[in-house]
Amino acid sequence: MISVAVLGSEGRMGRTVCQAVSEAPDMELVARLDAGDEITPEHLNGADVAVDFTVPQASEGNVHACLDAGINVVVGTTGWTDEAIERVRAHADEAGQCVLIAPNFAMSAVLVMEFAKKAARYFDSVEVLEMHHPRKLDAPSGTAHATARGIAAARKHVHMAAMPDATQTDALGTRGGVVDGVPVHAIRLAGLNAHEEVLFGNPGEQLVLRTDCFDRVSFMPGVLHAVRAVLPRRGLILGLDQVLDLD
Amino acid sequence: MISVAVLGSEGRMGRTVCQAVSEAPDMELVARLDAGDEITPEHLNGADVAVDFTVPQASEGNVHACLDAGINVVVGTTGWTDEAIERVRAHADEAGQCVLIAPNFAMSAVLVMEFAKKAARYFDSVEVLEMHHPRKLDAPSGTAHATARGIAAARKHVHMAAMPDATQTDALGTRGGVVDGVPVHAIRLAGLNAHEEVLFGNPGEQLVLRTDCFDRVSFMPGVLHAVRAVLPRRGLILGLDQVLDLD
Amino acid sequence: MISVAVLGSEGRMGRTVCQAVSEAPDMELVARLDAGDEITPEHLNGADVAVDFTVPQASEGNVHACLDAGINVVVGTTGWTDEAIERVRAHADEAGQCVLIAPNFAMSAVLVMEFAKKAARYFDSVEVLEMHHPRKLDAPSGTAHATARGIAAARKHVHMAAMPDATQTDALGTRGGVVDGVPVHAIRLAGLNAHEEVLFGNPGEQLVLRTDCFDRVSFMPGVLHAVRAVLPRRGLILGLDQVLDLD
Amino acid sequence: MISVAVLGSEGRMGRTVCQAVSEAPDMELVARLDAGDEITPEHLNGADVAVDFTVPQASEGNVHACLDAGINVVVGTTGWTDEAIERVRAHADEAGQCVLIAPNFAMSAVLVMEFAKKAARYFDSVEVLEMHHPRKLDAPSGTAHATARGIAAARKHVHMAAMPDATQTDALGTRGGVVDGVPVHAIRLAGLNAHEEVLFGNPGEQLVLRTDCFDRVSFMPGVLHAVRAVLPRRGLILGLDQVLDLD
Repeated sequence: MISVAVLGSEGRMGRTVCQAVSEAPDMELVARLDAGDEITPEHLNGADVAVDFTVPQASEGNVHACLDAGINVVVGTTGWTDEAIERVRAHADEAGQCVLIAPNFAMSAVLVMEFAKKAARYFDSVEVLEMHHPRKLDAPSGTAHATARGIAAARKHVHMAAMPDATQTDALGTRGGVVDGVPVHAIRLAGLNAHEEVLFGNPGEQLVLRTDCFDRVSFMPGVLHAVRAVLPRRGLILGLDQVLDLD
Repeated sequence: MISVAVLGSEGRMGRTVCQAVSEAPDMELVARLDAGDEITPEHLNGADVAVDFTVPQASEGNVHACLDAGINVVVGTTGWTDEAIERVRAHADEAGQCVLIAPNFAMSAVLVMEFAKKAARYFDSVEVLEMHHPRKLDAPSGTAHATARGIAAARKHVHMAAMPDATQTDALGTRGGVVDGVPVHAIRLAGLNAHEEVLFGNPGEQLVLRTDCFDRVSFMPGVLHAVRAVLPRRGLILGLDQVLDLD
Repeated sequence: MISVAVLGSEGRMGRTVCQAVSEAPDMELVARLDAGDEITPEHLNGADVAVDFTVPQASEGNVHACLDAGINVVVGTTGWTDEAIERVRAHADEAGQCVLIAPNFAMSAVLVMEFAKKAARYFDSVEVLEMHHPRKLDAPSGTAHATARGIAAARKHVHMAAMPDATQTDALGTRGGVVDGVPVHAIRLAGLNAHEEVLFGNPGEQLVLRTDCFDRVSFMPGVLHAVRAVLPRRGLILGLDQVLDLD
Repeated sequence: MISVAVLGSEGRMGRTVCQAVSEAPDMELVARLDAGDEITPEHLNGADVAVDFTVPQASEGNVHACLDAGINVVVGTTGWTDEAIERVRAHADEAGQCVLIAPNFAMSAVLVMEFAKKAARYFDSVEVLEMHHPRKLDAPSGTAHATARGIAAARKHVHMAAMPDATQTDALGTRGGVVDGVPVHAIRLAGLNAHEEVLFGNPGEQLVLRTDCFDRVSFMPGVLHAVRAVLPRRGLILGLDQVLDLD
């Protein structure tokens, strides 16, 4: 039985994590802490692992406090600077504890990104589509950016030629952008939530990798997996893919 | 039994039409004419209908010659000017004959365009994706342009508001363009031929209309349908959709 | 401004309808009635239209009471018998009022069904896929059944031959069934809600019609459309498609 | 420059391989052998690698002859028995040569199968769809069978529970079958060639892996990759995935 503390327990993600932990057969929710609650061993109530879904200003302090209290941490809060990451790495190494920071806990989204990197070298062409609800402010999405950069790096690693493209007449004028040579198309549609599709092509064939995240509950399998993964590990881990068995 | 003459019979489309006519149980191929062959009643060999897949410079002359010979015509050649169309309309009306000119004979492509116009008024959001082989010179494709214009006109007809879109950060830099307010995304991928997808969204739901044309043989059901359709009709018909029963 | 009463206002659908009516710029929610509330002119509070999402035992009585009170009705409750429908038809005709009963208010689902009937005659092959959450008890779904029957009837109407299928070795053993000659495949997948895909094929081409209903909020555009549609109409109307402009 | 001999050079696959080898910048086609041609060092004309797309009765003999001639072999011919495979393994080991036998050279199909095995443990639900032309005799396809078995083995390896499925009413009557607990749906549609889609689901999310093989030319990147791969290797290799870098 893994004892879990949730930091940011009254936020939308925090509440969802609390419920997922409560329903997991191998976990027990021992602490719900939110803004205003001090992160002390007493308040952490014997937790083995803390899960942090708070705000950028609070997250780093929370992690250090948890390390001081001797417990491992899973962080879903975004907005980490390189400096903050390095401070946490040093602290985790020194303490012999483990901290996992991930920008995305949706299993399907993480797998699409990993599979896309593996497939990249075997196809002449690749384009990325990301589809989101129309309330989203930025385009292309951060996940699509990261996917495209991963694909581009994998192609470069094996010195692939530029993709075939005879286009002569094009306004280059739709939502999206070319990221490191990989076209990313951004679609905004009422009814959708967060979706990504990677299309790979060779003469005569196509490979499609698609992730659909319909709801924030989609992050829970990844969060629970991360909680189980940090328990026996040490040091800083960046990304859920680092604790998946994909080889 | 419908007697059919094929004009441009040695081109790639013409040869495919000759084969399709030969295999149709209700048709007979009575004449194969190509560049250099005069379009005379004798050469047309008793045809009821001529199918023209030639070149822009030849097509109008062929149509007038067929009308003079008293037979109806199905035209798949592109590049018609408004003036040429009006001259053919006048000639067909006067002769009491029928000419059908269509930019696209792929049944699935024509149906996607028609269904998209019908659906347009019932959805808050709509975006168009067109996917083609990387040897294509223009983007977005002519079909996607026409689809987007049809959708935009249908939305305007019922005075719909602009689509919801909160995007603030966007390079607007991918292959494609916004056509009459409808975003069109152009994908070029080795292995593909000609494909289009229209995504409609409302809160909580999505409608997807997709056409895949894998091969020029996909035009044959539409061409044969047009041949059967012009036989009892009179006047000029623009577009395969005009002879489909979609109501 | 259309005054609307919601019957079954405390159920999950009823609450969603109340919110949708409240947010519609051209409607006003004037009455929320639930189990135990009598359907009287006084309780209906001047409503022009009542929307009924209750239970099969209550729904017919509600409709007659509304007709007696002189107002039109939109019914989303399922489980209507042919006899009950005929009683309502007679009452509506006599009263010169309008009642619309529909099994499905999701615009995208209704359009896929209608477009599938229109497309059916133009393609050699067609198969239906329906994808639902794994808590669903029946397979194939009622909507997929209705879609397949509509397609089969349209094919029969124009005397189409059986679909090409050379299969010799097949256990015929997956979730789903053949409905009037149309194969329906039933997929049950955690994470999904209610989705349907119709695949049409001809040599060289494919047409795909797909509906995704992610949430019950997807029924609201259809419900509001029906409310607006019954206002000026008379008699019994079966199905949302009857009040859509698809021709 | 890799010198390549093609065995079965006048068959449909053989001719396609000859063309692909001729167009590859790092290969030279040095021998085209077909039925009736003896496999001798002289006829192999200095080839480094032979590619065999012949018939089951001829293939094993061809491989032994090539090994005797001191050259490595890539085999795409199907119908190998376990005994024949073991005889080739022994011969290859003894000769210090390499033989690669693969049932499928389509890169996208092989990757979908490999990615599906990796993803299987992370999702509650999974179903497989295979879509083929209607001239196919067997259902479900061999590739879909293999995909489902790989997924089932990966789930069993980590002791996953049965998939959630509340279905009570189901005729279990559509083309396809349940393979080791994994539902496989078989679709036959005019216009299609060979396609497979694997759907994975968790609460709130979906992962889709799809392969489209439009044409036999889709096997060429895999065949050329295999030719390059056997050159420096020894022993028997079963499956293209064994020489892809997917870890």
